[in-house]
Amino acid sequence: MIQENKGHTFCLVTSCPDAVGIVAEVTRFVADVNGSLIESNHHTDIADGWFYMRNVIAVDSLSVDIEGFRKNFAELADKFDMKWYVRDVQKKQKVVMLASHSSHCLADLLHRWHSNELHCDIPCVISNHENLRSMVEWHGIPFHYVPVPKEDKQDAFDKMNEIIERHDADTVVLARYMQIIPPELCTKFQGRLINIHHSFLPSFIGGNPYQKAYDRGVKLIGATSHYVTEDLDEGPIIEQDVIRVSHSSEKDDMVRLGRDVEKSVLARGLRYHLEDRVIVRGNKAVVFS
Amino acid sequence: MIQENKGHTFCLVTSCPDAVGIVAEVTRFVADVNGSLIESNHHTDIADGWFYMRNVIAVDSLSVDIEGFRKNFAELADKFDMKWYVRDVQKKQKVVMLASHSSHCLADLLHRWHSNELHCDIPCVISNHENLRSMVEWHGIPFHYVPVPKEDKQDAFDKMNEIIERHDADTVVLARYMQIIPPELCTKFQGRLINIHHSFLPSFIGGNPYQKAYDRGVKLIGATSHYVTEDLDEGPIIEQDVIRVSHSSEKDDMVRLGRDVEKSVLARGLRYHLEDRVIVRGNKAVVFS
Amino acid sequence: MIQENKGHTFCLVTSCPDAVGIVAEVTRFVADVNGSLIESNHHTDIADGWFYMRNVIAVDSLSVDIEGFRKNFAELADKFDMKWYVRDVQKKQKVVMLASHSSHCLADLLHRWHSNELHCDIPCVISNHENLRSMVEWHGIPFHYVPVPKEDKQDAFDKMNEIIERHDADTVVLARYMQIIPPELCTKFQGRLINIHHSFLPSFIGGNPYQKAYDRGVKLIGATSHYVTEDLDEGPIIEQDVIRVSHSSEKDDMVRLGRDVEKSVLARGLRYHLEDRVIVRGNKAVVFS
Amino acid sequence: MIQENKGHTFCLVTSCPDAVGIVAEVTRFVADVNGSLIESNHHTDIADGWFYMRNVIAVDSLSVDIEGFRKNFAELADKFDMKWYVRDVQKKQKVVMLASHSSHCLADLLHRWHSNELHCDIPCVISNHENLRSMVEWHGIPFHYVPVPKEDKQDAFDKMNEIIERHDADTVVLARYMQIIPPELCTKFQGRLINIHHSFLPSFIGGNPYQKAYDRGVKLIGATSHYVTEDLDEGPIIEQDVIRVSHSSEKDDMVRLGRDVEKSVLARGLRYHLEDRVIVRGNKAVVFS
Repeated sequence: MIQENKGHTFCLVTSCPDAVGIVAEVTRFVADVNGSLIESNHHTDIADGWFYMRNVIAVDSLSVDIEGFRKNFAELADKFDMKWYVRDVQKKQKVVMLASHSSHCLADLLHRWHSNELHCDIPCVISNHENLRSMVEWHGIPFHYVPVPKEDKQDAFDKMNEIIERHDADTVVLARYMQIIPPELCTKFQGRLINIHHSFLPSFIGGNPYQKAYDRGVKLIGATSHYVTEDLDEGPIIEQDVIRVSHSSEKDDMVRLGRDVEKSVLARGLRYHLEDRVIVRGNKAVVFS
Repeated sequence: MIQENKGHTFCLVTSCPDAVGIVAEVTRFVADVNGSLIESNHHTDIADGWFYMRNVIAVDSLSVDIEGFRKNFAELADKFDMKWYVRDVQKKQKVVMLASHSSHCLADLLHRWHSNELHCDIPCVISNHENLRSMVEWHGIPFHYVPVPKEDKQDAFDKMNEIIERHDADTVVLARYMQIIPPELCTKFQGRLINIHHSFLPSFIGGNPYQKAYDRGVKLIGATSHYVTEDLDEGPIIEQDVIRVSHSSEKDDMVRLGRDVEKSVLARGLRYHLEDRVIVRGNKAVVFS
Repeated sequence: MIQENKGHTFCLVTSCPDAVGIVAEVTRFVADVNGSLIESNHHTDIADGWFYMRNVIAVDSLSVDIEGFRKNFAELADKFDMKWYVRDVQKKQKVVMLASHSSHCLADLLHRWHSNELHCDIPCVISNHENLRSMVEWHGIPFHYVPVPKEDKQDAFDKMNEIIERHDADTVVLARYMQIIPPELCTKFQGRLINIHHSFLPSFIGGNPYQKAYDRGVKLIGATSHYVTEDLDEGPIIEQDVIRVSHSSEKDDMVRLGRDVEKSVLARGLRYHLEDRVIVRGNKAVVFS
Repeated sequence: MIQENKGHTFCLVTSCPDAVGIVAEVTRFVADVNGSLIESNHHTDIADGWFYMRNVIAVDSLSVDIEGFRKNFAELADKFDMKWYVRDVQKKQKVVMLASHSSHCLADLLHRWHSNELHCDIPCVISNHENLRSMVEWHGIPFHYVPVPKEDKQDAFDKMNEIIERHDADTVVLARYMQIIPPELCTKFQGRLINIHHSFLPSFIGGNPYQKAYDRGVKLIGATSHYVTEDLDEGPIIEQDVIRVSHSSEKDDMVRLGRDVEKSVLARGLRYHLEDRVIVRGNKAVVFS
């Protein structure tokens, strides 16, 4: 369901230890403030004893504003020991994108944004190469060239960090950015830093996955969008997909076919994230797709 | 989630005009009778103003039995003008299967049943051919041979109807049964009579769909499981899937490849039905898969 | 296999009544002119008694140029009553693109072209709307605005025709061009005019297929790239694909999800065409994908 | 194309160092003995400089019998240093199946065989459990119970080996046989011993792949059919496929969903093998599917 097409809504996202009566109390609360549920998703992880919930609430009839909602809900949240937030869906998230030399993921995301499919603002694109500047600027988006020299990466990362901060990013997307992200950025943007890995994880972790796929003779190749953690390629998986290859697919064909999977898997992963459909716990992500 | 692996549960399925507070009141009711929600699915059809809900409730802690649950819930159901039922998941449905000459769908369902994957009883199989008798009887299931002569189909259908009634069927599955079902059976088993059509509906309605697919030169063929209504191949769709074919696929290859899709699409459709995941309204089915 | 990455090659495409010895004589011919086969695909349609063949031949060692090849091969072609052509793969085809208001297919194709994935020239884009001008021109491609007023379509089509002729188009692509193509253009570009239909043909022929898919409650939606003939949506199918939808997919979601399928199905279809992988006979296409 | 439906054919399978004129000479040879090519597949691995070819030849018009064909072809084969064989397709291969406790793969293969979809003989099934005896024997196939006690596996493997030899097996299929195959059997049946691994290799090598998949939070699970070599799960891959799972899929759901993928991936892999569509070189398999 396209969230932003549904009039003005809030999205309430919670997770907590499972208990009797959570749904009843949360939905009672929503009804009491005159909220109408447009969409509601639950999940109970029985093995783990954990409960996840996402509610999209129509705002028009609400008797409280978002601050009032937050204030009133806090008590209930405390009672069930919830991790939670409520977000005004009308307010777009600010997404800073990082890219390197490859254009396919970035071009795809920019086109989706430009044609109003991706509900966010893109305050800037940062790249360690200059080649995508013109494409980015055509979209009316500032482009920052931050080269990452082998001998002094820290300086580059400091500069990137400063740009990201200045633009007040809610989310950072690595659109085939080919540098390892420093731990401090991983920590700062935990659960808000999304990467696209060009293999079906956990197959072919690390560099050059298409070569590895070619060498192993697999019959499907894939891509994985995931949150970045300090452990390379080990973060919570948001979305994955695959495409068929054959013995006649050389490595270059795999790269080409893989691009299409990368594009769509990153776009879907980012969409789920922006629509508050993803709740991370430990190394796994609940995705109410 | 495999329903029958979760201890003793009830499944409460409702649909009604959308309104504020439904979820709150239903889940409040469940909490008040000390029920714990194992799984809960909602859907609001905004265009149609209709609300759908399925709740799986742990029975162990419940303060009422199923009759008590029904009696108590009726008042709430009336308030929201619900179509609803609650079912004891432990109680297996009785599924009568109809087949003709082709064995693949029936063999697949019988194997799933035999290996405890399909949570139902199969009181009997009815066929208008004798060739599958031994396979059915090996599974310990009675086999009824009811030929359908062209000149007197009504007599055959009366006999079938009598057998189905005698076995007190909850659901009837047409596992590639190649006769048109008479209207009275369609009406009697509305929403409980499942067919597998060997095409991706609405493509290739009617007979010989693989020949039609071959003649049209399509690049994917498919199958559709749907509830049977009086309008041939027009009933609510439960599940569909496709498989790739090419110019080198002759009609016989399509038939062969199609069998695998038919098997899995019918098995999934029946599973959704047996787990109370399907709610029909008009000609469409909400499927909480 | 990415054709243009393989050094200089010719592509020889033939079809003819099946007979003993065709492959032997064709490949003998190729060997005799010192050609090395890089890729070779055959298909025998047994029902139809027809033979199809595509050969990619390395040019470096060839003892003849393309004119010599053509001249020498003609005799063999006559012997087997072949429909055939040989093409210098290095020479890019000229592809004129037609679009309307929707940008997704055009943007996708332009990006593939811009990043050297699509081996062709795009001499111009023609549209009956102005909104995509800037995007097209950013790629350095001329944009022609040819409005198609309801009261005088013929004049517009004459103008389009003139532009297409002036640019000496080998192939015309309808990248979600929402006007019915006049018969004379269909005839003139028979087997070289490619459309993307936004449904899984033959389902939902004609206008508004997503609405029809929504109304029917299908569980998969699709797209079809096909050659345009005078019979609307009835031409030879090159490529198709589908994507899963559910009861929670409103029509707008189907439109959004469908865009991704349309993009990739059109891009794949065009790629097959440009690589001479498609041989049409009657209303069906052999595709050596 | 269903091979055995095409009248009497021979299948000629070759691979050799790439060279100019191979196809010409092989197809010339076939034409010279009056053979008609029903299906022909080639592949040139450019990186590796290796050529692969499979030809299905109609026998009716042939001027030689299979011994004559072999004798005559040997000279040509020597010239190009070919690895090759020619097989009378009418002569069914003998496939011995090994199973353990799980029935799904074996039941699926037996049903395909029983309904004439799988073109082979099954001289016997061997299992280290008794539970599948009745199912196997219903099909009219001898069942051998060979328990594999932890303390003396060699004795069991000797017994198995003796049974396989006695039945003169061409191919051995591990239909979810849960014992590690001893090296001498791997060597003896190199390229003729097919396993189904219940993960998308190289993900989740070794035991308990569904638990590992669940723990990693992947969004797709898969299965792989491959030739068995001494390196566990490292042999040449014949076929793979995947199915979507989600956060609501518990490990048991993955096991259940995975069964369907395992069944079809093993059946397709075995089919390709039986139709001589697979040519192994090193650790990779060319599959003319």
